Amino acid sequence: MDPSAREEACFEAGIKFGALYHQFAGTPVSPESATSLEHAIEEAITNQPHCESVAVDIDPEKLDTEHGYTELGGEHMTVEMGIEYEGREVTARMAMENGYPLMAIESVTE
Amino acid sequence: MDPSAREEACFEAGIKFGALYHQFAGTPVSPESATSLEHAIEEAITNQPHCESVAVDIDPEKLDTEHGYTELGGEHMTVEMGIEYEGREVTARMAMENGYPLMAIESVTE
Amino acid sequence: MDPSAREEACFEAGIKFGALYHQFAGTPVSPESATSLEHAIEEAITNQPHCESVAVDIDPEKLDTEHGYTELGGEHMTVEMGIEYEGREVTARMAMENGYPLMAIESVTE
Amino acid sequence: MDPSAREEACFEAGIKFGALYHQFAGTPVSPESATSLEHAIEEAITNQPHCESVAVDIDPEKLDTEHGYTELGGEHMTVEMGIEYEGREVTARMAMENGYPLMAIESVTE
Repeated sequence: MDPSAREEACFEAGIKFGALYHQFAGTPVSPESATSLEHAIEEAITNQPHCESVAVDIDPEKLDTEHGYTELGGEHMTVEMGIEYEGREVTARMAMENGYPLMAIESVTE
Repeated sequence: MDPSAREEACFEAGIKFGALYHQFAGTPVSPESATSLEHAIEEAITNQPHCESVAVDIDPEKLDTEHGYTELGGEHMTVEMGIEYEGREVTARMAMENGYPLMAIESVTE
Repeated sequence: MDPSAREEACFEAGIKFGALYHQFAGTPVSPESATSLEHAIEEAITNQPHCESVAVDIDPEKLDTEHGYTELGGEHMTVEMGIEYEGREVTARMAMENGYPLMAIESVTE
Repeated sequence: MDPSAREEACFEAGIKFGALYHQFAGTPVSPESATSLEHAIEEAITNQPHCESVAVDIDPEKLDTEHGYTELGGEHMTVEMGIEYEGREVTARMAMENGYPLMAIESVTE
């Protein structure tokens, strides 16, 4: 079967999460540089088609500063995203669950 | 509304495409190294949850060899992927369309 | 032979250039989001050891906006970097030369 | 001062290490897919200018398989590289030291 508009919206949401994670994971980050990285990730991913909003929160308390900085990973951030495709809206979220950065759809509009 | 299993399957398909593209775009590639890169991408992404199959085809004729190698981009490859989520199957594809590496769902099982 | 302090400084400079390029190449970027990306790259790479300064200049006029955004590549930016290792200072630069994003040492202090 | 050929060789070695690390860190990897990833990294980086040899060893015993795969990081691999620049040869190595993936020059030919 062909995908519905809702399914397309979910596909687009997934693309943005995969892109965000694999583009920016590994970036050197410290408590001092976390804010500029949050903004850059938000603005970069919002450029992509159908992406209405991206909110990235890097928790400075989770950043290991033993060597002054660490590499950004899923364990350091939560991400909320709003996608719109042909009038259908998806909200999706990435957060840690059982030691794994779980990406999940929170809701799809009817 | 909560997402359906089909919508979840589409979300998962999108994640894999975004991951594949943003992990490997920029990799130095030449006609000689294209095959090992294809295999590594296929095996790497197949590790991810719900990913049943990945086929990557890098076209050596599209690789600019003026400097001996180029950086992998969407214009060099096509990707086909099979995702399975709670019994629903999605096939999706990335290929160039109008100068843009378009990722699209080809079909979703009922 | 063991490397000298100057050689170590040059090695460190190279690491930062390779890291910068391969971490951020492929990031979705538009004229509107270029400034936040410049700042994030500068602050991210400055976290790394021996890195005293990083200046990234993304030229908005070089960004293809046919699809609203493009993926960051060497052709869009110039980078200047200052590295210090055991009292030796290296300045290095990345800019386009003959269609190739050339990374080069500009000077090493005695 | 202008850099010497030895200093240029060290700069080039650094570029390759930074590139290798930030291109491939984050790649999904399992004991089953480690070998194809090693080969792809070796062939990809060897494409770059002045790079004579790259040997990547991913230790399957260090890969966390709780979720079936993990993301490639410095703690999973050692890398040896040979660089040649205007007749000068550098050998360099990346391995874990005190919890940090240390990149170091091993020797520079006279």
